[in-house]
Amino acid sequence: MQHYTFDDLDQADKAFRTNFVNCLSGYKSANLVGTTDGKTHNLAIVSSAFHVGAHPPLMGILFRPDSVSRHSLENLTEAGEYTLNAVSADWTDKAHQTAARYDKAMSEFDAVGLTPEFIEPFPAPFVQESPLKIGLSVEEVTHLHCNKTILVVGRVQHVMIHPEAVGTDGQIALDALGLACVSGLDTYHQPQKIARYAYAKPERPLTRID
Amino acid sequence: MQHYTFDDLDQADKAFRTNFVNCLSGYKSANLVGTTDGKTHNLAIVSSAFHVGAHPPLMGILFRPDSVSRHSLENLTEAGEYTLNAVSADWTDKAHQTAARYDKAMSEFDAVGLTPEFIEPFPAPFVQESPLKIGLSVEEVTHLHCNKTILVVGRVQHVMIHPEAVGTDGQIALDALGLACVSGLDTYHQPQKIARYAYAKPERPLTRID
Repeated sequence: MQHYTFDDLDQADKAFRTNFVNCLSGYKSANLVGTTDGKTHNLAIVSSAFHVGAHPPLMGILFRPDSVSRHSLENLTEAGEYTLNAVSADWTDKAHQTAARYDKAMSEFDAVGLTPEFIEPFPAPFVQESPLKIGLSVEEVTHLHCNKTILVVGRVQHVMIHPEAVGTDGQIALDALGLACVSGLDTYHQPQKIARYAYAKPERPLTRID
Repeated sequence: MQHYTFDDLDQADKAFRTNFVNCLSGYKSANLVGTTDGKTHNLAIVSSAFHVGAHPPLMGILFRPDSVSRHSLENLTEAGEYTLNAVSADWTDKAHQTAARYDKAMSEFDAVGLTPEFIEPFPAPFVQESPLKIGLSVEEVTHLHCNKTILVVGRVQHVMIHPEAVGTDGQIALDALGLACVSGLDTYHQPQKIARYAYAKPERPLTRID
């Protein structure tokens, strides 16, 4: 195996380091953040959405202060509400194009060809084309000291989903929804199920549920 | 589409809510955290590892105070060093079994049949079977107010990886490494590549690199 140390990465070419380190955590979720400033409906792809807790239902996203998604960050901290819309394997190209640095007055919905949808009176736009749409309110904003990253934790207020994908035990069949995932900055994948396992216990061998 | 509100989830059966909310963020990375207390080498699956920054290279993981991975949390905050080892699609069963609540004196390496490996003088154990192994030092520990979750950010000190999977531009072919990803608490998937896109710019149509 190849061994890279901290110093190797520190001294590497910037593009090499950025690609390499962005791949290290493994596969990432692909979501579009929907926000509004009251005039323009903004949309930005994020691969940093993650589970924070189930009760209450909380999700996090990370923002870099200098990132292309800074308009989203401004909008959501101002408005207090935003959406997360899962990206389908069918339109990863449109989702990726939202990463372009459009002027703030340009809606990425228009620019890439996706459709804003609303649940009154929730102000932030959902993505009609998404099979899993979540409306959130800002719960906590934390600045990480280590690199000025901003962690936004949101409370889930609304979920819209195809009912066929929700099991009686609450499990969501993400593969049946046709969702994509991301590696690094720019590579999209479609996962295929290997197995679902029963709750692991020390005294018994692992069994498959599905 | 089915519409679930915050109140619907709040009043749902606990198992339903836990499964459902754990699926909402989409696909998650599958990693084993390796730690040691100097005597017992501990291993725990986490689906919360995420990218925090590339320069310096930083990664985060979340811990619940009451989770089965509390031994890992104790070990890594005490020792200051830990490993993240990507889970292969070939041995998701062994990886999942590390989630069982073993006594602290029992090594999950022995319990599930994975092999500890060391890079002297780094104290934390790597997983020999993993095709992507990362050694980290604790950089920052933050407690989230919203639900007592503990965010540990680590600095990447070592990466061991099959050289064939690393592109000249630093991109890691996670699919060539055979990595798995997770949905919810217990379901494993293997992703297949859809496309890699060029850097998105407002004034030009998106193109594929690969």
